[in-house]
Amino acid sequence: VFKFGIGEIMNYIGKMVEIVFRNALKEDEIKGTILPSSTDKTYILKLKNGYNVGILKENIVIIKETQEKMETIETIKEKKVSQDINKPKVLIFSVGGTIASKIDYNTGGVSAQFSADDLLNLIPELKSLANIEAYSFSNLLSENITSKHWEEIAKAVYKKIKDGEYKGIIITHGTDTLHYTSGALSFLLNGTNIPIILVGAQRSSDRPSSDSTYNLLGAVKFILESKKGGVFVSLHSGNSDNEINIILGTRARKMHSSKRDAFKSINKGIVAKVIFDLRNIKNSKVEFFEAYNELNSEQKLTEPGKLNNKVYLLKFFPGQDPQIISYLKKEGYKIVIIEGTGLGHVADNFIDFIRKEKDIVFFMTVQTIYGRTNMGVYSTGIKLKDAGVIELKDMLSEVAFVKGQHVLGKTDKKAEIIDLMTKPLFFEMGNRTEE
Amino acid sequence: VFKFGIGEIMNYIGKMVEIVFRNALKEDEIKGTILPSSTDKTYILKLKNGYNVGILKENIVIIKETQEKMETIETIKEKKVSQDINKPKVLIFSVGGTIASKIDYNTGGVSAQFSADDLLNLIPELKSLANIEAYSFSNLLSENITSKHWEEIAKAVYKKIKDGEYKGIIITHGTDTLHYTSGALSFLLNGTNIPIILVGAQRSSDRPSSDSTYNLLGAVKFILESKKGGVFVSLHSGNSDNEINIILGTRARKMHSSKRDAFKSINKGIVAKVIFDLRNIKNSKVEFFEAYNELNSEQKLTEPGKLNNKVYLLKFFPGQDPQIISYLKKEGYKIVIIEGTGLGHVADNFIDFIRKEKDIVFFMTVQTIYGRTNMGVYSTGIKLKDAGVIELKDMLSEVAFVKGQHVLGKTDKKAEIIDLMTKPLFFEMGNRTEE
Repeated sequence: VFKFGIGEIMNYIGKMVEIVFRNALKEDEIKGTILPSSTDKTYILKLKNGYNVGILKENIVIIKETQEKMETIETIKEKKVSQDINKPKVLIFSVGGTIASKIDYNTGGVSAQFSADDLLNLIPELKSLANIEAYSFSNLLSENITSKHWEEIAKAVYKKIKDGEYKGIIITHGTDTLHYTSGALSFLLNGTNIPIILVGAQRSSDRPSSDSTYNLLGAVKFILESKKGGVFVSLHSGNSDNEINIILGTRARKMHSSKRDAFKSINKGIVAKVIFDLRNIKNSKVEFFEAYNELNSEQKLTEPGKLNNKVYLLKFFPGQDPQIISYLKKEGYKIVIIEGTGLGHVADNFIDFIRKEKDIVFFMTVQTIYGRTNMGVYSTGIKLKDAGVIELKDMLSEVAFVKGQHVLGKTDKKAEIIDLMTKPLFFEMGNRTEE
Repeated sequence: VFKFGIGEIMNYIGKMVEIVFRNALKEDEIKGTILPSSTDKTYILKLKNGYNVGILKENIVIIKETQEKMETIETIKEKKVSQDINKPKVLIFSVGGTIASKIDYNTGGVSAQFSADDLLNLIPELKSLANIEAYSFSNLLSENITSKHWEEIAKAVYKKIKDGEYKGIIITHGTDTLHYTSGALSFLLNGTNIPIILVGAQRSSDRPSSDSTYNLLGAVKFILESKKGGVFVSLHSGNSDNEINIILGTRARKMHSSKRDAFKSINKGIVAKVIFDLRNIKNSKVEFFEAYNELNSEQKLTEPGKLNNKVYLLKFFPGQDPQIISYLKKEGYKIVIIEGTGLGHVADNFIDFIRKEKDIVFFMTVQTIYGRTNMGVYSTGIKLKDAGVIELKDMLSEVAFVKGQHVLGKTDKKAEIIDLMTKPLFFEMGNRTEE
């Protein structure tokens, strides 16, 4: 038994080892054969099931050789995978994040260099479903994403859609801000007739319980069966391994920091559920729901426009100083999305500040996440409406924020801004009475 | 049939009518006998079940007389209710909100003038359980509440606890910010040996589906059976009429704008569930859970201290300008709670701004609400910790915000602030590994 930090990776190459390692939440154990690695910060293991996983050296607590032999120690250099060119073509467009990377992304520099071959080595089931092509766009930590990236992603994906080759496009993305990006792309790529699916993974691939495989397979499966386009999110639906939800890009929200089923469809049902047959992936089923029926089947996709980032997302809290409004005015913000309390409220002392700032258009969402604004019930809501605040009903704050950037990219006229913000583009706002 | 706006209330007094009215979400129908009202803006009806409800005149769509007779038309003037002085004494301390008010609070001025008699007329079951005393503190819309109110409420409730007369105290409060107040009181009244229970109502009492009655009865029932003190929240647990959850004051969060079961216990189980026997309220049961067992039974209550409101709750969003940090510094904020993405992240370009501001203590919570920070997993988290950001694990942002005010009221020394913030006072932070 070697303690963490003792011994170099070279000692282990080709040997079968047991490793105890730390991860996000606890210690875990894994067994496999050590492969050569392009960095000495990471140990790469080939598992019995054929998958490769990377473990950060600094997370390793104990590593020890075992006497066991792998049934088949595969070629150490990854082999070229032959694909069936008659199968539908699916593009995997990588923005970043843990998902679909061979190695945990905090090793730096390694994860983004994945090819279709890498992916197919990692997830061999993919080739039984589709003819996979891979496109490495960036290796962004999703917390660093900005509107500039959304514009560039939309532009690149737009071109790929226009190519007309693909049955669908999967965008792999870190989960931190995946729901902001799915919102932005829902607007920028509004009108796509093929599914564009954002896929993340909550568990890095250095964990046996990683969700990346099924999240990806779920997206592919939906793409194959869907007759309609749109922007969606594909992640685990619950604790069971074999169910994946397909959620509207404007309705997804990350609701847990670490669970596999962190993404929930808020204030609207899911589009579809993919239920895997774990013994034979081809027998897996896609169940379609009401939200799928509501999708348009023939739409017109236009070139994605520009975003304007002079939008501020302001979470109200009790006793907050309304001077923040003057600051936002000074900084040149044109749209402020207020995440209000209850049915869409802020303190009375905000109202005059709001009324005064004629250069800012104020919109209201709710910080309860579930439910909707209803500013006609209590006096505060009525006064806020009178001061010019526009309610966005059941639109998520995060989606309202990215929609604001989209709308401001088109116009700076107040009336047009209000008109565009309150006209649903891709199911971001409903009129459904929900109690 | 008279259309809305026609006919004065005087025409109807003592008569049985059917009213169609608008409310928050849809039209609703109600039947009862019109009582005299202290305002012509509101019609007060006595229902068959003995309850009085108020309906805003402007919400009335149709009012018509019926031929039906009430089984018993009770005295129009509310009668003095005799109570059993041998029953345990429970204080109802009214801060504001719809709950426990005879009339919808947006009529203005009416709701706060309630007496124990009013309450007992409204909810006759109360007197079968306890000897109720009422104390009208204020008639605040909860979105207008500030740290000054929290200080005053705590001081007043502290005195009532010290009186030693009460088995428990119920604080009626608007639901918009009820979870902020429950957090603040959890810290200010930390050490109470009787239950202090915040009770709200999601449906105003002018609706047949109002939840105020059971929320209140649930709180009383818990008070009678609990052997331990603390600050809690009592609201509906689900769609069923007869189940009320008792949630730790530091774990409650409003998660729906309008549902009766809007309040969820986040990252920790509920304290108790009250299950009503609707035929006989006295046979109702209180089920206690693990969180109840964890409560201290003997604590020392000290006089509630001051709050310092130089705390800012900052929700991070993609592309946010880090200049906001300089603004918060200029405005004299001493603590900033950052609601980060994922496991507690912000964009890289925030890190230098944070590192520079030595006068502000930065804490991190998660905007996923469920789950916790874990800033040792990804490079961004590690860099943020290095820049001085302290993670608050599974503490709710709203609770972190009020705890910051509490801690800053005690000390302005950085090391002490960090020490107090990260030492749990009333279950606001756990070390439990939750996946």
